[in-house]
Amino acid sequence: MSGKLYLIAGPSGVGKGTVVKELMKLDSKLALSVSATTRSPRPGEIDGVNYFFLTREKFEKMIEEDGFLEHAEYAGNCYGTPMKPVSDKLAQGYDVILEIEVQGCMQVLEKCPDAIAIFLLPPSYEILEKRLRGRGTESEEVIQKRLSAARVELGYVNKYHCFVVNDVVEDAAKRILDIIKEKRGA
Amino acid sequence: MSGKLYLIAGPSGVGKGTVVKELMKLDSKLALSVSATTRSPRPGEIDGVNYFFLTREKFEKMIEEDGFLEHAEYAGNCYGTPMKPVSDKLAQGYDVILEIEVQGCMQVLEKCPDAIAIFLLPPSYEILEKRLRGRGTESEEVIQKRLSAARVELGYVNKYHCFVVNDVVEDAAKRILDIIKEKRGA
Repeated sequence: MSGKLYLIAGPSGVGKGTVVKELMKLDSKLALSVSATTRSPRPGEIDGVNYFFLTREKFEKMIEEDGFLEHAEYAGNCYGTPMKPVSDKLAQGYDVILEIEVQGCMQVLEKCPDAIAIFLLPPSYEILEKRLRGRGTESEEVIQKRLSAARVELGYVNKYHCFVVNDVVEDAAKRILDIIKEKRGA
Repeated sequence: MSGKLYLIAGPSGVGKGTVVKELMKLDSKLALSVSATTRSPRPGEIDGVNYFFLTREKFEKMIEEDGFLEHAEYAGNCYGTPMKPVSDKLAQGYDVILEIEVQGCMQVLEKCPDAIAIFLLPPSYEILEKRLRGRGTESEEVIQKRLSAARVELGYVNKYHCFVVNDVVEDAAKRILDIIKEKRGA
């Protein structure tokens, strides 16, 4: 029996990465989708684990061959979700988890209408703002831009199937696993 | 010290009424806002408890005198939130809970920019649909209309301050109380 594809999206700063990391610890039949990028590996990053590191030539060839579930360009580098590793894992019976931006999620849903799109919300804007400030690494201008981007992204919530509030990381991860388990049983 | 006004809104069928009823049991410093209506009382309904039952004449006079936080007309009857009972309770130090439709909530926020707007989400559309069907009282056409209304209403989520998923009524009520307690402490 093949697995299902779960898309975990949500506004910038909501904590998708942390929740997905926690989720992966909870169940051995989950596989994490690895993105491809044309940017250079940072120290310690491993090809095929953190990212598939591709040349721009190879990346563009894969676009032509319709090899991505979604792809986009940020700051001069290409990022995308290669289709084959996802479909291989699904065929092996894994449920595949794909952490993704709100816009990219819509692209994937067009190609994979059976995927389950889970929207991760902050408990409140106030807490989202605190989390963004808490990193202490970004200027006021960047924080304000991210907050207003978050407001726009939240407006897409009605395109999603399931809704999870990231109040406590462990609880949010468990609630996502509950959704997955319910689908397995259905 | 005066209390705060909390607006509990969310799509049709999400279970606002049940959650608010549970919430009111949890804390003695909460007061529930009572709506006014021009419709006739149903058997067992008590004036000032279930609704303030007003004549249309009296209702229209109150509109002229700017006596409502919000008001609307449904199916030939007027419904509204009288301002005075809310401001009286706030002055007495109660936190006031107002269960309201998504559209009405926006009207209240314009008049009361200090109010905290809490959006109640269903865990998923699938569950929302099951809950609507579970009532067993409505035709397929009505269910489809309510589902598509819910999708529109969810699109307003980015106008709200806080987000709570109504998975288990008791948990959702406790999460709302946590928000209130945090504001009391702030």
